[in-house]
Amino acid sequence: MGRIAYVNGRYVPQAQAMVAIEDRGYQLGDGVYEVCEIRGGALIDEARHLARLERSLGELRMASPLAPGALTHVLREVMTRNRVQDGYVYIQVTRGVAPRDHAFPVPAVRPSLVVTAKAVDPAKGAALAAKGIKVISLPDIRWKRPDIKTIDLLPNVLARQAAKEQGAYEAWLIDADGMVTEGAASNAWIVKDKTIITHQVDRSILRGVTRTTLLDLIAAKGFRVEERRFSLEEAKAATEAFITGATTLVMPVIAIDDVVVADGRPGGLATSLRAQFHNFARATP
Amino acid sequence: MGRIAYVNGRYVPQAQAMVAIEDRGYQLGDGVYEVCEIRGGALIDEARHLARLERSLGELRMASPLAPGALTHVLREVMTRNRVQDGYVYIQVTRGVAPRDHAFPVPAVRPSLVVTAKAVDPAKGAALAAKGIKVISLPDIRWKRPDIKTIDLLPNVLARQAAKEQGAYEAWLIDADGMVTEGAASNAWIVKDKTIITHQVDRSILRGVTRTTLLDLIAAKGFRVEERRFSLEEAKAATEAFITGATTLVMPVIAIDDVVVADGRPGGLATSLRAQFHNFARATP
Repeated sequence: MGRIAYVNGRYVPQAQAMVAIEDRGYQLGDGVYEVCEIRGGALIDEARHLARLERSLGELRMASPLAPGALTHVLREVMTRNRVQDGYVYIQVTRGVAPRDHAFPVPAVRPSLVVTAKAVDPAKGAALAAKGIKVISLPDIRWKRPDIKTIDLLPNVLARQAAKEQGAYEAWLIDADGMVTEGAASNAWIVKDKTIITHQVDRSILRGVTRTTLLDLIAAKGFRVEERRFSLEEAKAATEAFITGATTLVMPVIAIDDVVVADGRPGGLATSLRAQFHNFARATP
Repeated sequence: MGRIAYVNGRYVPQAQAMVAIEDRGYQLGDGVYEVCEIRGGALIDEARHLARLERSLGELRMASPLAPGALTHVLREVMTRNRVQDGYVYIQVTRGVAPRDHAFPVPAVRPSLVVTAKAVDPAKGAALAAKGIKVISLPDIRWKRPDIKTIDLLPNVLARQAAKEQGAYEAWLIDADGMVTEGAASNAWIVKDKTIITHQVDRSILRGVTRTTLLDLIAAKGFRVEERRFSLEEAKAATEAFITGATTLVMPVIAIDDVVVADGRPGGLATSLRAQFHNFARATP
């Protein structure tokens, strides 16, 4: 059975799912997105993902494509039609279709909405986490609002491609002060003397939903945590390092720029946090 | 007659012209574009636009969608089918259609190519130039490679929208040092004591084709020119100011952030350069 996508009100075979060439997402990068994990047929932290979607839309003064209740229905319909028990849903909203012009269309047009779902075997992520991943560092050349989850992902594309070519899974982005902001598609964390450290929430990082839920877990367990900037050098000298994201969950980092982190094996704290993560995330069938 | 677009090998009614939802241009901003003026049925500076397109593709390690000769044929076919004598052609190339993943598709897929044409009455631009335009200043929040003409235009969209809301035509982008890099969709120029000044070519601006041709004109006429950075304050105190772009040509600026430039009327040098521009640009039927 081929995959089914939701596109602007219709469920269509994904291979034939199309959008207009004058969709502002295609011509101007004028859109936002979310990726939400599906686990055991339930969405993970759906409310937080939808709240972040609303925030992204609000920052760009884009209208919501559907009422919240209607969107949650569409997500479930796409999950069901694609029979995805484990994997993720992808949600993309753009400002809509209009003759190309930088300024917003007048009158406003209906936002475009695309929803897809993909099955991913959880064993793959588990195997990768057991082994750990490598990251490289690259200058953070993105625009100054990475706190908005936009589809203008070319810098992220280039960073992930560079990582892949160097045998790494992710690229950590380094600001002008030598500080790690985040990964190209994940948040960055280190552990130092049992203190868990990750960049504070500001305009220089995306506020990851997995990051937020992990902070709930960390608080509940009483681990020490610091939300602050950390340098690449501090990271290379850390006891542990890991990344978080909706599809990677908590993923241990064993090397940064070919500098081995601690003993080069997935850290105990990261591994424990990964194991407990779904006890703290909210699953909604 | 409805407009006709070229999309991936076919000429289709523009209103029904579609691309796949998994086109990397739509999901990842993984694409580039060009806008080339059409004047009297001829393309203006086509070779320079196509050379810049090749450069953009090269910087992103994207393949060309067509051999150069085939692309020039498509441009003419789109112009002819749309009966455009004056206006512009729009060319968009993306890395192609593939399951969503930041890293480049393996194996590589065929790049996507969209070409459209639009008629624009030259009298409109002339009337605007006779009146002059206002610009506002905004922080330059774009990524660090605006020298590549990518479709990741959200910062430009937001800047042009802000300009429009303040009754201005363009936004000049100001770097961390208070210097004007360029406009959101044009290059920025000032005149000071008969010396014409525009930002030097480096990674912080797009090398405008109209900018390049205007420099040819300036050299031929023996005007003094300096390619260097200039501050917003210097611009506000200038004798003249103007912008250049493939569709705006040379457009006089009469106010910057509501500070009137000189006597608030289009500058004589800018007006003269505009009048002579097409004598120096290369028209290819």
